[in-house]
Amino acid sequence: MDNRPIGIFDSGFGGLTAVRALRAICPEENIVFFADNGRAPYGGRPRGQLRLMAHQNLSVAASCGAKLIFAACGTLSSNAADILAACPVPAFGVLDAAVAEIAREQSAAPIGVIATEATIRSGAFDRALRAACPGREVYSAACPAFVPLIESGRVGKDDPALRGAVADYLQPLKDAGVSTLLLGCTHYGLIEDALRDVLGEDVRLVDASACAAAFIKHYLEENGLRGGEGSLRCLTSGDKERFERLAPLFLGQADAPQTEQVPVMPAEEDS
Amino acid sequence: MDNRPIGIFDSGFGGLTAVRALRAICPEENIVFFADNGRAPYGGRPRGQLRLMAHQNLSVAASCGAKLIFAACGTLSSNAADILAACPVPAFGVLDAAVAEIAREQSAAPIGVIATEATIRSGAFDRALRAACPGREVYSAACPAFVPLIESGRVGKDDPALRGAVADYLQPLKDAGVSTLLLGCTHYGLIEDALRDVLGEDVRLVDASACAAAFIKHYLEENGLRGGEGSLRCLTSGDKERFERLAPLFLGQADAPQTEQVPVMPAEEDS
Repeated sequence: MDNRPIGIFDSGFGGLTAVRALRAICPEENIVFFADNGRAPYGGRPRGQLRLMAHQNLSVAASCGAKLIFAACGTLSSNAADILAACPVPAFGVLDAAVAEIAREQSAAPIGVIATEATIRSGAFDRALRAACPGREVYSAACPAFVPLIESGRVGKDDPALRGAVADYLQPLKDAGVSTLLLGCTHYGLIEDALRDVLGEDVRLVDASACAAAFIKHYLEENGLRGGEGSLRCLTSGDKERFERLAPLFLGQADAPQTEQVPVMPAEEDS
Repeated sequence: MDNRPIGIFDSGFGGLTAVRALRAICPEENIVFFADNGRAPYGGRPRGQLRLMAHQNLSVAASCGAKLIFAACGTLSSNAADILAACPVPAFGVLDAAVAEIAREQSAAPIGVIATEATIRSGAFDRALRAACPGREVYSAACPAFVPLIESGRVGKDDPALRGAVADYLQPLKDAGVSTLLLGCTHYGLIEDALRDVLGEDVRLVDASACAAAFIKHYLEENGLRGGEGSLRCLTSGDKERFERLAPLFLGQADAPQTEQVPVMPAEEDS
């Protein structure tokens, strides 16, 4: 029994969908979730800032005594994979989890990836998928409007702004004939209906949050790290009341989780 | 009454002398002290590493809910003063505290500063003292051997290695006729006897730890932030048993403080 918490962080509410998926399959684990709402969205930030933020978020999670740290954030996990790898606490991100899942597919058809601008710009998903799935083509599309739309609650498949953005961003992937679409951002699971509407039933949607939960469970079991009392503690660098109001929706529960406010740290380093 | 803790960090045991001085004058304050023993000493590291470490240490202290953060470390406070200033939690360091103290002197005589190599290289003490004490000359000396000697327990004024280093480093300041010597590193208070032996009785030694305590007390009072239950919680990135064995000596108490081990985070950022 290892009762130390799992540390999970994300730019905002998207990471709570990974927390929800994890609690569904590992209900006894203790979790500390850091939602960096005060700095969200991450997706358009320069790489240097994202790498500093990875250092900061890892330091917070590590100082909470985490047994495993998970970046439930495609943007940080793709721009700071080497920083996660250098962390003395085992640290992984949605990049690791999603690529491991897709590598299991028996298929030669093209793979599509959608993610934030900074994620696609890093090229990390593209490289990792090509290495893990030799012979398969990989097509990527940056979707800069998705996180802002989702964080403002526009997630319904009939929302006109969301519909327009989905159609625009996905058309090239549809034209390329992808058989699998990796949602390379934990927010995107919340708009699966809208994505499905454009892509049709034949494309497999691989949700980063579901992969994250499966990956974490597998890692804990392989390394004898399971254990806990099912606690959930949340830290937010955004507005505490807003977090407490919205978090239950993403977690699929009635009550707000125990939440503490932490300050918004500076993300710029210029010397 | 503001019961939130004061967050104090240092590379190692030197910062505990600031904690001790603070508890002597503000016994009711709650304190979280982070001793980065796993990465000590700081004094010879390149500036980029020190700035990343400042971001990491501030993130840890801020996530503990600190009402005030203090870098009880001359090296970080001189190499990352702008990062401390950008922190949304009020954050200061020994640079601020020591300069405020010396600025009160009615004297035109030269000021001496001793500190780690990285502190002297930053030029921050030199600049701040010249600005705060117009008309006074400032002479600086890097003392790279002091922290390693002190952390290995060689603090007695008759220790031959310490005596030799003190004589070497201080001679130029003695020759310059300094009337005040600023100990720009919280470790150096532990070798005051050896410093005094070389400098004689007429030079005023300004100890960074005593300045830190006075500065923190003043800031809390001016801003209505006093309060607490006198708790002390320590985090160390070094060996927990060694910390618990040595901390009481630096704190001047019989028992080890409540201590948690945190991992040693990577300090390198190369892209």
